[in-house]
Amino acid sequence: MKATVMHGAGDVRIENVPDAVLVEPTDAILRVRRACICGSDLWPYASMEPSETGQSMGHEAIGLVEDVGAEVRTLKRGDLVVMPFAISDGTCEFCHEGLNTACVHVGFFGNNGMNGAQAEALRVPYADGTLFKLPVGEDDALMSSLLTLSDVMGTGHHAAVVAKVARGKKVAVVGDGAVGLCAVIAAKRLGAEQIIIMGRHPDRIALANEFGATDVVSERGEEAAERVRELTGGFGAHSVLECVGLEQSELTAIEIARPGGAVGRVGVPQAEKLPASQPAFYSNITVGGGPAPVRAYIEELLPDVLEGRIEPGKVFDRTVGLDGVPDGYRAMADRESIKVMVRP
Amino acid sequence: MKATVMHGAGDVRIENVPDAVLVEPTDAILRVRRACICGSDLWPYASMEPSETGQSMGHEAIGLVEDVGAEVRTLKRGDLVVMPFAISDGTCEFCHEGLNTACVHVGFFGNNGMNGAQAEALRVPYADGTLFKLPVGEDDALMSSLLTLSDVMGTGHHAAVVAKVARGKKVAVVGDGAVGLCAVIAAKRLGAEQIIIMGRHPDRIALANEFGATDVVSERGEEAAERVRELTGGFGAHSVLECVGLEQSELTAIEIARPGGAVGRVGVPQAEKLPASQPAFYSNITVGGGPAPVRAYIEELLPDVLEGRIEPGKVFDRTVGLDGVPDGYRAMADRESIKVMVRP
Repeated sequence: MKATVMHGAGDVRIENVPDAVLVEPTDAILRVRRACICGSDLWPYASMEPSETGQSMGHEAIGLVEDVGAEVRTLKRGDLVVMPFAISDGTCEFCHEGLNTACVHVGFFGNNGMNGAQAEALRVPYADGTLFKLPVGEDDALMSSLLTLSDVMGTGHHAAVVAKVARGKKVAVVGDGAVGLCAVIAAKRLGAEQIIIMGRHPDRIALANEFGATDVVSERGEEAAERVRELTGGFGAHSVLECVGLEQSELTAIEIARPGGAVGRVGVPQAEKLPASQPAFYSNITVGGGPAPVRAYIEELLPDVLEGRIEPGKVFDRTVGLDGVPDGYRAMADRESIKVMVRP
Repeated sequence: MKATVMHGAGDVRIENVPDAVLVEPTDAILRVRRACICGSDLWPYASMEPSETGQSMGHEAIGLVEDVGAEVRTLKRGDLVVMPFAISDGTCEFCHEGLNTACVHVGFFGNNGMNGAQAEALRVPYADGTLFKLPVGEDDALMSSLLTLSDVMGTGHHAAVVAKVARGKKVAVVGDGAVGLCAVIAAKRLGAEQIIIMGRHPDRIALANEFGATDVVSERGEEAAERVRELTGGFGAHSVLECVGLEQSELTAIEIARPGGAVGRVGVPQAEKLPASQPAFYSNITVGGGPAPVRAYIEELLPDVLEGRIEPGKVFDRTVGLDGVPDGYRAMADRESIKVMVRP
């Protein structure tokens, strides 16, 4: 079968790999119907050391269950499912608490020997716990938004939950990538009164406005912080959703938070230490977040997708087949595309 | 009048200074009945550059109102009051939200030209908002516990609140100073099922046990983290109360937190950046805290003090007059004393 393998920075190839097969009795084989390229895939695309064996890519998908192991109880061949980016057994105490990304059997597709989803098919461990069976069939109008439940929409929602977004709050979103844009949707959905998007790409800003952003800040660094304080009556945002992960964006997130406010970070942190520890302390700012338990959030977000109240699928502005995946990486890295959908 | 002035590391003097006088119509003059030396006073005691003018010291007190400005409405001469370490106007939006330490008029006693409380008397700005009038008169049995409401008890409580201590939670307290010991009281008061105290001074550990600690971890670094994981069923503590402020203790606090857990830090951070940003992220650990809004907490904590359900005053193991203050600093720095009470 065909799958996407990264062999180094800027070197993404579509290769023939062995067919996905059941290994454990709790596995399912998923025939990928939609996958996508993630902003986090751009980190190795920018910096990966050359590798002969390469790295299997892709961790977001919707697909059809093609086969199940003997111990899979809730899924059967032909089911349409969302595949969140992390595997989770669905039974441990963390899964019960809704923190599937801390599952005692957690794993991330495309990592540590697990196949990725930018492929024709892949093996899904702990299928009962990992996959979410959709109550609808394939529907072109909905598929893109349903696909975002595998990562970016749930991740934006996680930032908003951790940052304590609620009715009447002033919110700032750092980053205008697909996660930042979904964070805008999440903030509006949770009742934010003001949503400031920090970014500078006109196409993304336009989408942010469509999603509910009320203000745009294109400045950077201290100027950006100053501008956010002006827009928020002098004190900063109650909730800051950090959707980048660079040290500079973490610093900005803390600088624009109101005393007593909260930063929800979902951008994968690139620096070993968090900046502005002392300013955060003196202002009693809380910093939280991490890999989003998107599996746990699907139940809450799905009705809004099915009934059209939110349309996170609009973050996809390009669709490619598997052979178009390498150029999809290039397009996202060059900021030609916000997010690329893959139809194998 | 006599007051404590620090002139450099290890150089604390009792000096004659001008009498405290009303400056603003919202001021009160407080005759100090009890004050104390704070763990945070030991930072300048260890490292302050020599200064001819010196630094007025002390930010925790109980006293009698001796005089009030024309605009003070709720206090009168003779009232017995708690003086929290920070001034707050009691009227701004942060004070209304209960975050008095972010008051738009916030200031800290003994800083920026404000007199300290290790003195016979001092001027208290925004007296209505800053001071808390006690419903009782002077009572030797209660004074020490009431005095802790000016800082250490409210600060330990803040760590517990930020770290989301609640009924049934597993809690770890990093640091066995007066704040750490009060954090143990706070954790027990909020219903923690397990309270692990991290420390190695026998007198402090004994008091921690008396206050409700269920386990002691005397190891340091990775060994300490390993031990806490063992004691908590393998995953770490739901709530970690960081009561030191050193980079190593912040690192330990993050390492011993359970995935999805929370660190409440009240130790004044000595490092510019927070360590272990990536491990905290991958485990979805929230880090919050800062200067405790102790003024807002008095109402909640006071009944438990008055009715003897908590006795945080036991952290005082030495009492001195003003002339004994310099030796009190030495005793605390040498770990001869947990916390020194001052009776001017």
